[in-house]
Amino acid sequence: KKTYTICCLPGDGIGPEIMAEGKKVLAAVGARFGVDFSCDDALIGGAAIDACGDPLPAATLEAARASDAVLLAAVGGPKWDATEPGAPRPEQGLLGIRKELGLYTNLRPVQVFAPLAGASTLRPEVIDGVDMMIVRELTGGLYFGRRERFYNEEGAGANGTSGQRAYDTLEYREFEVERIARQAFEAARKRRGRVASVDKANVLETSRMWREVVHRVHDAEYADIELEDVLVDNAAMQLISRPAEFDVVVTENMFGDILSDEAAQLTGSLGMLASASLGDGVALYEPSHGSAPDIAGRGIANPLAQILSVEMMLRCSFNMDDAADAVRAAVVAVLDDGLRTGDIVDGKTPRDKVLGTDAMGTAVAQRI
Amino acid sequence: KKTYTICCLPGDGIGPEIMAEGKKVLAAVGARFGVDFSCDDALIGGAAIDACGDPLPAATLEAARASDAVLLAAVGGPKWDATEPGAPRPEQGLLGIRKELGLYTNLRPVQVFAPLAGASTLRPEVIDGVDMMIVRELTGGLYFGRRERFYNEEGAGANGTSGQRAYDTLEYREFEVERIARQAFEAARKRRGRVASVDKANVLETSRMWREVVHRVHDAEYADIELEDVLVDNAAMQLISRPAEFDVVVTENMFGDILSDEAAQLTGSLGMLASASLGDGVALYEPSHGSAPDIAGRGIANPLAQILSVEMMLRCSFNMDDAADAVRAAVVAVLDDGLRTGDIVDGKTPRDKVLGTDAMGTAVAQRI
Ligand SMILES: CC(C)[C@H](C(=O)O)[C@@H](O)C(=O)O
Ligand SMILES: CC(C)[C@H](C(=O)O)[C@@H](O)C(=O)O
Repeated sequence: KKTYTICCLPGDGIGPEIMAEGKKVLAAVGARFGVDFSCDDALIGGAAIDACGDPLPAATLEAARASDAVLLAAVGGPKWDATEPGAPRPEQGLLGIRKELGLYTNLRPVQVFAPLAGASTLRPEVIDGVDMMIVRELTGGLYFGRRERFYNEEGAGANGTSGQRAYDTLEYREFEVERIARQAFEAARKRRGRVASVDKANVLETSRMWREVVHRVHDAEYADIELEDVLVDNAAMQLISRPAEFDVVVTENMFGDILSDEAAQLTGSLGMLASASLGDGVALYEPSHGSAPDIAGRGIANPLAQILSVEMMLRCSFNMDDAADAVRAAVVAVLDDGLRTGDIVDGKTPRDKVLGTDAMGTAVAQRI
Repeated sequence: KKTYTICCLPGDGIGPEIMAEGKKVLAAVGARFGVDFSCDDALIGGAAIDACGDPLPAATLEAARASDAVLLAAVGGPKWDATEPGAPRPEQGLLGIRKELGLYTNLRPVQVFAPLAGASTLRPEVIDGVDMMIVRELTGGLYFGRRERFYNEEGAGANGTSGQRAYDTLEYREFEVERIARQAFEAARKRRGRVASVDKANVLETSRMWREVVHRVHDAEYADIELEDVLVDNAAMQLISRPAEFDVVVTENMFGDILSDEAAQLTGSLGMLASASLGDGVALYEPSHGSAPDIAGRGIANPLAQILSVEMMLRCSFNMDDAADAVRAAVVAVLDDGLRTGDIVDGKTPRDKVLGTDAMGTAVAQRI
């Protein structure tokens, strides 16, 4: 019997609750498809800071490297919200593992689940048919450039005030743009053949290089793909005015962070969206949403994005398309049966169809 | 008779067409309120590049400095879209004048004009009552930090590829954050008393400094104002899920660029939104929208954002509140009469109510 080792990183907030449901679904898939998933938990984020003062302990990184895939839930929370430069922060765990595993491609599919269309704040006819893939560069840019804070007189301003000064650096190398562009064009070939590349080339030097490199790769290797450049401010508008027209959207790390959350929110299916972070070795899967500290520990979080992260894992890391299809079908069946967690109910949902985290996970697992 | 000198910068694309309507309205205001507005055009952006190779000629800067206020239309267009580092770009004219005049505060009111609510892609009940003021820092951050491109072997990547490398720098000094925070709190005092400060403090050092400084200013001088911190990715979502709950939003330059365009678009009133850029001397007023090269020269652009920029000028630079109110009332009256430009029509607009740029400007001027 085939065995896959999965490194599970529950993290903070609702993380442990939704991770339990991801595992439940993995077990159901294993039983039906004759595969063994061996799931081992490791520490990351705030939980790791509390346990050992380090948001990404060496043991976690080792376990991740030795695994066949990493399943992460969420990190962060107000408990660890310090602003002093030296303080350890949960997010360093997430950024650290992305960097250490070389996960430069973040795939964020943004779709509307038809039974949930009513949860969107956009008009139904505008979100109808939204189906895009956001390809976010994940190991470069402002997130990983040199940063510093100076507390001394160097911060003195033109107006004579003395004070602090701080900077972050947005840096890209050509090969980093090249490889993410290629991922975007490859994704487009399997989809509707269109790529929107988002930058701020009218201001930023990194964006001008980005635009040149994306076009060079396009013209040389992917002339069959339709490519358009969109300035980031304009992209933030077009996601709202014509979301259904986007197919693949490729952009740098920070723009991708902002635009993918905007796109996810507009579908109304935020609690349903998964992501895959891929590099040249082991890959990582996580929900697009965060750790929701406000509802942590109450057993009401929506586990479906975590479960759909398992779907992406089955597809991308294990080539188990049948199993992935089964997971997706189970999620759709649950929605079609009218079952909902609190975040996706609407006025018409009957009381007895509103499930907690555990019951929702079970409902999906039973349908696999 | 009081005389004000206004430096007019028509710029590119639809710029000259909408500027003409701004002037028409200024003339009407002058006639009714017994003031002389002396309007002189100067070159900026692509038009200035074409005329003299410089997006911000010295003569323009001189005229702006000598004026009582600057009225700008829009800059940029595909004609000047070069990506080589050395090429002059229209946007340098805009960034240059902001920097030279020290216009560190960009005020972008975002409102729904009730008769246009149907133009929004959001559900009517969600945009109902949206009324926020985005306070964008305008002379710092990534827009003005050091940037460079290296073409040599320094671009070589971990994978052995040689190539380019580029960087931009996001830098802030304490006094820059302090003064913009103060502007935001002052604005909130005249409004609903709430400020959302947007940053990415879980990743960026500049954001952590931003957050500290904003809170220090708040606690010391504006404890009466309700302050919340919102991460930029979360802000991009909340603008869509609960736009009406925002009052004042304050943020750094690039985040402000992205979020203000997102907020403007979601109202459906994009062609109606003006902005003021203020510093310690002469101020500049411009529409929130761009130069729309695709419709330039056809006489169909919506001049109302330009006209409402005149309203902001009358209010902020000349303390002519009555005149400003008259301009606003005239715009509202025009909308109430069902008059529309092409961008704000809906299925129910009768043909004879769809006006060109010139006729729309005249309709407003007549009502003053
Ligand atoms: C937690 C944070 C550092 C992270 C990011 O910005 O990358 C998150 O927002 C995400 O999008 O995965
Ligand atoms: C033209 C461009 C440089 C400018 C900016 O990004 O500041 C514009 O988008 C704006 O928002 O005023």
